[in-house]
Amino acid sequence: MTNTAPIDLRSDTVTRPDEQMSAAMAAAEVGDDVLDHDPTMRALEERAARLLGTAAALWVPSGTMGNLISLMLHLKRGDRFLVPRGSHVLNHELGSAAWLAGGMPDPLEWDAGPGRPKSETVRAQANGAPGYDRLHTTLLCLENTHNGAGGSVVPPHEHVKLAAAARDSGLRVHLDGARIWNASVALGVPPAALTVGVDTVQACLSKGLGAPVGSVVAGGEDFIGEARRVRKMLGGGVRQGGVLAAAGLVALGRIDALAEDHDKARALAEGLAEIGWQVTPPQTNIVLAAVPDVRLIMERLQAVGVQAVPMSGQVRFVTHRDVSKADIEEALRRIGKARV
Amino acid sequence: MTNTAPIDLRSDTVTRPDEQMSAAMAAAEVGDDVLDHDPTMRALEERAARLLGTAAALWVPSGTMGNLISLMLHLKRGDRFLVPRGSHVLNHELGSAAWLAGGMPDPLEWDAGPGRPKSETVRAQANGAPGYDRLHTTLLCLENTHNGAGGSVVPPHEHVKLAAAARDSGLRVHLDGARIWNASVALGVPPAALTVGVDTVQACLSKGLGAPVGSVVAGGEDFIGEARRVRKMLGGGVRQGGVLAAAGLVALGRIDALAEDHDKARALAEGLAEIGWQVTPPQTNIVLAAVPDVRLIMERLQAVGVQAVPMSGQVRFVTHRDVSKADIEEALRRIGKARV
Amino acid sequence: MTNTAPIDLRSDTVTRPDEQMSAAMAAAEVGDDVLDHDPTMRALEERAARLLGTAAALWVPSGTMGNLISLMLHLKRGDRFLVPRGSHVLNHELGSAAWLAGGMPDPLEWDAGPGRPKSETVRAQANGAPGYDRLHTTLLCLENTHNGAGGSVVPPHEHVKLAAAARDSGLRVHLDGARIWNASVALGVPPAALTVGVDTVQACLSKGLGAPVGSVVAGGEDFIGEARRVRKMLGGGVRQGGVLAAAGLVALGRIDALAEDHDKARALAEGLAEIGWQVTPPQTNIVLAAVPDVRLIMERLQAVGVQAVPMSGQVRFVTHRDVSKADIEEALRRIGKARV
Amino acid sequence: MTNTAPIDLRSDTVTRPDEQMSAAMAAAEVGDDVLDHDPTMRALEERAARLLGTAAALWVPSGTMGNLISLMLHLKRGDRFLVPRGSHVLNHELGSAAWLAGGMPDPLEWDAGPGRPKSETVRAQANGAPGYDRLHTTLLCLENTHNGAGGSVVPPHEHVKLAAAARDSGLRVHLDGARIWNASVALGVPPAALTVGVDTVQACLSKGLGAPVGSVVAGGEDFIGEARRVRKMLGGGVRQGGVLAAAGLVALGRIDALAEDHDKARALAEGLAEIGWQVTPPQTNIVLAAVPDVRLIMERLQAVGVQAVPMSGQVRFVTHRDVSKADIEEALRRIGKARV
Repeated sequence: MTNTAPIDLRSDTVTRPDEQMSAAMAAAEVGDDVLDHDPTMRALEERAARLLGTAAALWVPSGTMGNLISLMLHLKRGDRFLVPRGSHVLNHELGSAAWLAGGMPDPLEWDAGPGRPKSETVRAQANGAPGYDRLHTTLLCLENTHNGAGGSVVPPHEHVKLAAAARDSGLRVHLDGARIWNASVALGVPPAALTVGVDTVQACLSKGLGAPVGSVVAGGEDFIGEARRVRKMLGGGVRQGGVLAAAGLVALGRIDALAEDHDKARALAEGLAEIGWQVTPPQTNIVLAAVPDVRLIMERLQAVGVQAVPMSGQVRFVTHRDVSKADIEEALRRIGKARV
Repeated sequence: MTNTAPIDLRSDTVTRPDEQMSAAMAAAEVGDDVLDHDPTMRALEERAARLLGTAAALWVPSGTMGNLISLMLHLKRGDRFLVPRGSHVLNHELGSAAWLAGGMPDPLEWDAGPGRPKSETVRAQANGAPGYDRLHTTLLCLENTHNGAGGSVVPPHEHVKLAAAARDSGLRVHLDGARIWNASVALGVPPAALTVGVDTVQACLSKGLGAPVGSVVAGGEDFIGEARRVRKMLGGGVRQGGVLAAAGLVALGRIDALAEDHDKARALAEGLAEIGWQVTPPQTNIVLAAVPDVRLIMERLQAVGVQAVPMSGQVRFVTHRDVSKADIEEALRRIGKARV
Repeated sequence: MTNTAPIDLRSDTVTRPDEQMSAAMAAAEVGDDVLDHDPTMRALEERAARLLGTAAALWVPSGTMGNLISLMLHLKRGDRFLVPRGSHVLNHELGSAAWLAGGMPDPLEWDAGPGRPKSETVRAQANGAPGYDRLHTTLLCLENTHNGAGGSVVPPHEHVKLAAAARDSGLRVHLDGARIWNASVALGVPPAALTVGVDTVQACLSKGLGAPVGSVVAGGEDFIGEARRVRKMLGGGVRQGGVLAAAGLVALGRIDALAEDHDKARALAEGLAEIGWQVTPPQTNIVLAAVPDVRLIMERLQAVGVQAVPMSGQVRFVTHRDVSKADIEEALRRIGKARV
Repeated sequence: MTNTAPIDLRSDTVTRPDEQMSAAMAAAEVGDDVLDHDPTMRALEERAARLLGTAAALWVPSGTMGNLISLMLHLKRGDRFLVPRGSHVLNHELGSAAWLAGGMPDPLEWDAGPGRPKSETVRAQANGAPGYDRLHTTLLCLENTHNGAGGSVVPPHEHVKLAAAARDSGLRVHLDGARIWNASVALGVPPAALTVGVDTVQACLSKGLGAPVGSVVAGGEDFIGEARRVRKMLGGGVRQGGVLAAAGLVALGRIDALAEDHDKARALAEGLAEIGWQVTPPQTNIVLAAVPDVRLIMERLQAVGVQAVPMSGQVRFVTHRDVSKADIEEALRRIGKARV
């Protein structure tokens, strides 16, 4: 990367397939995954299910579709679901949780930390007044890492209490694990340790892991059977999907490498703090910076060739495999020099 | 009412038609309101529109349908709408705002008082990040009086600021005025003073005003034309509705009498406070009492023949035309004697 | 009725409550049917259930809502349902069977007679190719009498074969019995003989029976419990509904009188045939006349003070309790004199 | 292909990417197509728009999603749409036209030939009775080639009359052109000659053209802007989609080669006829055979290693680039020898 090229810290979704991944895609054994089951798809889905500790899994074109299918299958029309405020399903999926899955969200405060509700809060909000004319609360929808809270992690002991509170209250549990791999690496536990007690989980292949397209949604056999049908309904069934699943399999072999993204995020945060920015120390690969005027700062960053996005009234930087430590240093140099 | 009959303070919806109302219903001139326009329906709708300060109005079987039609017409699939937390459309309409009208609610805190958000909060939450992949926030849904906040009123000067904040931000405004008549009487202003700047308003005939069935939804001519179509879609079109509209016309002549319900509510609240209950002074005809154990208190009230309902983690009493001042005194006597 | 007043043959929905009905409405014992169960509502629902041969019934504001609730509860998103072409749910309910109940209609030809499909056709269309990616056909929706086919009746032996074909094929059965009372009278069998094998049935009180507002939907206890919830969702729950239920009870006492409407329809059809119209002999209270130019004929009828409606490319006349035999004769005189 | 390997004539969707296509995928320049616009995606979309004669186009994961997005944007809740009976949107998209796009289908008979309605029929069914309580008919949804009718083509002069009838009646026109490339080649006209007068068209890359995944939906600039938003709602937005778009670009260079598939289909049909099958002469790459017992024949075909699918009560064979003329001969030999 030259000194003038923009440094792209908008998202880890910008990662491009490298040579190893391209070769795997070109060599993939494929079939028609709508008529039968594409063999590489099947291999990916089995591997993802094992990693996530579920009986089965299904490839989907996006994390949004994975969350949507889950909510559609968990919720009946008008059911209320509990969800930490600022969650992706509330803010970044164009309202499909409501209009398409038919759910009425009931936001949970972050009373246990950034992006993290207390299990007592889940219990309190789960139990409504009885009556045929009252909403049924039927689902807890968690997010780990929590994007809107700056990539914060929910540790296993808290996760278990949240899931238990939900189950005790008769709720199902869905986990938006778009970046569960980052949570797993940051916490030093296997991904399956973070899905204990959930009914379904969605995990992305196209973020830090670097696959070009795709996510998986995972759960029980019956759920996945239904999910396959709903995926077809929504237009998410694809033919020779093995070309993408091959990339997904390579991606799943790179989970440990996410630690480097976390290192880069720490370096970025420390560097920003040194030049006077107000930054929360990152837990994974996301750095949120509180600034007085988001629009102004976004323009200045753009001008010096550092790309970020506004989020939750702050500026969000995301580190990933396509930016090096040197790129981070260069970004800091540009920001510092220009007194952004 | 004898000393042993239960005193029904569950809701002002329990009011029964009296002789004058029954006579009006029996004498009503009627027509087929689906094929044509029932003449008494038309008279009711015109009178309601005048009272509410709108160009037109439409009778609907319930306040829920009035709110639902309004949200269906204001919201496109996935649109976000701002609404004070604890509002009726969130908690008491079985999620239809989400699953049927397709809206994603974004709750507003009560930072200006019970049931009342600040206009600054409306402005802040209305303005999201731009982008084709972001939710559009398109509606502010107010409630006056606010049921879940204990019948609290939004005064005209605050209402106007809220509506202005919405309009400046490109939002439409719907007012759930199920009890707008109570707000009007409590504030000493005409109902139309509380609909300034709104696009649509729903108002109930079957609560304190005593009609057996029905509400009106009011707005512009085009809106009402569309609303008539949507009412038919939902199965809310009726034939000789004039029998109900006649009751509604009598009801609309009784707005001023709601002041007596407010007096009774004050008497109840004061009496409860005297015997040690923790009660917020009522602004209209609803008394909310904070109690340590709602379920236990509900059982005890039931045992002594005083009927109330649980709401917002408290006990809600509602006064109305079918309980007298003597009934309120008797209710207080029963509660005090039994040391509820 | 004077010689100049229009004679309204548009629909039997135009019938107005008479004195007996108004008196019953005024005298009705009422309660809050949302909070509790209005006693007159309960009486009506029990009587309707007995007449229709089901375990339970629920009052609804309109036949459209009764059909809609039934379809919503029978169909899952995208399910296919079989329905005779030209049925009310296809043509006169604003598409709610599709957009709200989520059903994909598969029309049945009238291969057994007007409005009547053969049971073999039901069997053939019910059985689709298997596969997770294929539509599920789950419901047969019948209509008796069939409005679009000119009030034609489905006799018990055909009805039973249709219901059996559906059940053998794994389909549920809903009957749109808006005018089931007319079918019952015309066939000389009790209404319950026409609901054998159905899961749910909707029947109107506000057509030939003369109630101002309302229908009932009937079925098993579990269905009615769910239906009550869905009615509330749609805004069809009402408070002192007893005022309407009282009219409904009077209406249910008048089923036998429908024979007079059928006589009047026969007289009208014979009279029209005599003056050269092409008319199918009516089976109940509906007369369909094939005309060369519907719009022109509608204008001419309007001009001479005879009101009808266009339907299925023909002109539809409906007889009812508010037109006398003399009115029919006068209508024929006007049509003949003006050479409509 | 050895003599024992199954010959797959189930669908042209089974085609696998060849070396040229794989190389193009590996070499594709990519970007994040959700955040920005992936450059190869953009190239594909521009090329598809030019070929289809529209202002713009959008890649979608499947033809089902392309049709769904179009119907969602054309239809308001409950709108009626005209569609030839047996169309893909009716039979093979899990009812999403109804439950998700909210449309009530009104099937058109094939009165001009297989899969082809007359323009007069469109006019007749488009014009319903007026009135606020009547369905609005707003869309004509065509299919060319028509899959369920055996890959039949609608020639340009008929297409233009159908589109004109729709437009004269105030309807929009969507064309399901999943196999429009086949129609274009069979008719010897450019694809854009078959989209005259349509508002939107969907065309598949993953059928005869051989791309592994993807379709395009095409129309005006405003439509595509909205479609991009709806694609995101449904979870069809992808990141480095350029890997798939590169395959799509190769596929669009192979339209002319479809003539070979049509030759193979003719050879297959003639061969089947010679051994006594009842086969309609194919117009494109689909051969429909009428058989006395579909299930039995399917089993026998499976036993001898010839794969087909049941469709419209017949057996459907589809030729494509991954079966050679020799494969067709071998298939005929197997079928003949086994006296299937």
